[in-house]
Amino acid sequence: MEFIIKNEYFHKAIAEVSSVVSAKTPFPILTGIKLTAGENHLTLTGSNTDIVIEKVIPATDEEAGLKIAETGSVVVTSRYLTELIKKLPGDIHIKADEKYSMTIMSDEILTSLNGFPAEEYPALPEFEDSQGIELSSAKLIEMIKQTVFAVSKNDTRPALTGVHMNFYGKSFSCAATDSHRLAFLETGIRYSFNGSFIVPGSSLKELLKLLAHQDESKVQIFSSESYLVFKTKSIMLCSRLIEGKYPDVTGLIPKEAKTVIKLDAKKLLKGIDRACLFAHEWKNNNVFLEIKEGALKISSVSSAIGKIEETQPLIELTGERELSISLDGNFLMDALKAIQEDHVLLSFSGSMRPVIIKPVSSESYIQLVSPVRSY
Amino acid sequence: MEFIIKNEYFHKAIAEVSSVVSAKTPFPILTGIKLTAGENHLTLTGSNTDIVIEKVIPATDEEAGLKIAETGSVVVTSRYLTELIKKLPGDIHIKADEKYSMTIMSDEILTSLNGFPAEEYPALPEFEDSQGIELSSAKLIEMIKQTVFAVSKNDTRPALTGVHMNFYGKSFSCAATDSHRLAFLETGIRYSFNGSFIVPGSSLKELLKLLAHQDESKVQIFSSESYLVFKTKSIMLCSRLIEGKYPDVTGLIPKEAKTVIKLDAKKLLKGIDRACLFAHEWKNNNVFLEIKEGALKISSVSSAIGKIEETQPLIELTGERELSISLDGNFLMDALKAIQEDHVLLSFSGSMRPVIIKPVSSESYIQLVSPVRSY
Repeated sequence: MEFIIKNEYFHKAIAEVSSVVSAKTPFPILTGIKLTAGENHLTLTGSNTDIVIEKVIPATDEEAGLKIAETGSVVVTSRYLTELIKKLPGDIHIKADEKYSMTIMSDEILTSLNGFPAEEYPALPEFEDSQGIELSSAKLIEMIKQTVFAVSKNDTRPALTGVHMNFYGKSFSCAATDSHRLAFLETGIRYSFNGSFIVPGSSLKELLKLLAHQDESKVQIFSSESYLVFKTKSIMLCSRLIEGKYPDVTGLIPKEAKTVIKLDAKKLLKGIDRACLFAHEWKNNNVFLEIKEGALKISSVSSAIGKIEETQPLIELTGERELSISLDGNFLMDALKAIQEDHVLLSFSGSMRPVIIKPVSSESYIQLVSPVRSY
Repeated sequence: MEFIIKNEYFHKAIAEVSSVVSAKTPFPILTGIKLTAGENHLTLTGSNTDIVIEKVIPATDEEAGLKIAETGSVVVTSRYLTELIKKLPGDIHIKADEKYSMTIMSDEILTSLNGFPAEEYPALPEFEDSQGIELSSAKLIEMIKQTVFAVSKNDTRPALTGVHMNFYGKSFSCAATDSHRLAFLETGIRYSFNGSFIVPGSSLKELLKLLAHQDESKVQIFSSESYLVFKTKSIMLCSRLIEGKYPDVTGLIPKEAKTVIKLDAKKLLKGIDRACLFAHEWKNNNVFLEIKEGALKISSVSSAIGKIEETQPLIELTGERELSISLDGNFLMDALKAIQEDHVLLSFSGSMRPVIIKPVSSESYIQLVSPVRSY
């Protein structure tokens, strides 16, 4: 294997695939990145037990300045390759010999890195491209961003550590819940497709990072029995799926509300943020909300530190005019951060029932936060 | 105590004194900042066992917008005060009652923080201002920056964890060594002053941070038996001194050199940085330097990872034309980073003797790095 590539481009490409590579794994070869030089392109592969990321650099990409002299492949430790390329001054000239030792030349600097045989690197799962659909990249990013934060942080119910992506006809929904809160978002898609997948939250967070660095406007999604693949022109992320049945979340959403209030979303977020400062003492970051005299009082108390309270005006109020409830301040903040609009609706069905949080102008994005005990 | 102050200014002032305050100390009152409202100024004090920092905000400072309604003082936990002020939207109105509870008002937000009685806060050591001298702030920063990195990281010889500041007549020198390397810098001062102090490296690092945020061009230095005080118009840092005798470092500097080379300082630093990537396997980050055929070869080898080598041209060479030596790459990097000039001189007296590292145009700044075993 032998090729020349521009330093900065190569460094970025390595960063894209190496983000999932762990330095600590029982399989030393998985600390590596696989470099495969084909006739007309260079492929970089990085993986962990949940995700495989593959980046293809075509020889026609002028920015990359890729020139392949000899095809072949080798695996080298991700960490050292990344740090080394960053520190090298000029174009990168790479050559691998039959002993898997890789020579890297840049200006007057000669480096060699010990490698692994590429044949020992785990093979990618195989897919039939025809089973997939195509989505706008911006839409997919929105669907993931507005739900993934609500996945469960602990493994006791593995299905809850994933986002439930459900395709049914021309509808696509994402749901995430840790059983104390829920984020649910639904959208229409152009083509009909059926399938239901629980995708690990960690995979989707990696996908968000990758898509943020792509200019491409479309993402293709393919599925197999145990994998889901997200693919743009130059990059592919293949994620393991979580087995099991996802709970029916639509049944959790209260149908009727006793009180609905409309507030300035950013101002409310800031108020909750301030109240959280005094809420850490409580197991559930208790923040107290009280509707009274046409305003919302936000407060929290810590016996050791002190207390805070503020009153925010309501833009609208319908239903019962008095109510008090204790909520987890961090969950409330996550929910408000995910809302892009200026105004937010909070619907209460009583102090022991979950609160519904919605942007004013959309019926398809619903969040729930359950109350916490205040003693 | 009662006063009003502008949010942003107050937040910055708190940050200046709170940098030394630890959240974990056996004395709860030391997790706090002391606020003292006098007739015409507000004083903030933060401290740990080594350092006291005091910031004075005069009521005449328009930027601060300070208005004192009632004098008095109170101590409140630094961490919560810092976080709270950052999150408050408007001017800060503070009031403390006789139970040491502090009320903070900002727009519609009402907060109270539990405090401590100011009388229980440790008193500052007392000084006679007349014993001091005045230095240019830029000069003091330079003296500290170019030596403090070389202090010892471990406590087995406490004197070596400090910088030796020595005033003798109109000369001022700073020396730091961990017994493997040395940084020594000498300068002339305007007024005659005699005194010799071992100042903890950690105190001087705090002083650098403080001075970086000051516009003032002069620093006054006062001493007492066991403290040294650095004072500008608005801020004061008082550091404990390390007791004991500092070793005579000038005797360590080799008088004659077998080989002297002149190199591009930045290029050499980059080369050493690259070589360090493969040097971590060695206890002393071994980087090999070899002078041969009028050039400098820099290399390092790791049996597990690989190897790197590069050759850099010499701008000048005097003395013996061949030499090889192993040095701690990290020490070399620290030494080169401290040199501001384009060119650097390296003087060798043999492969088992320390290397002298000097900027080309100055005789008063000398660094030593001892060789390491290469097997």
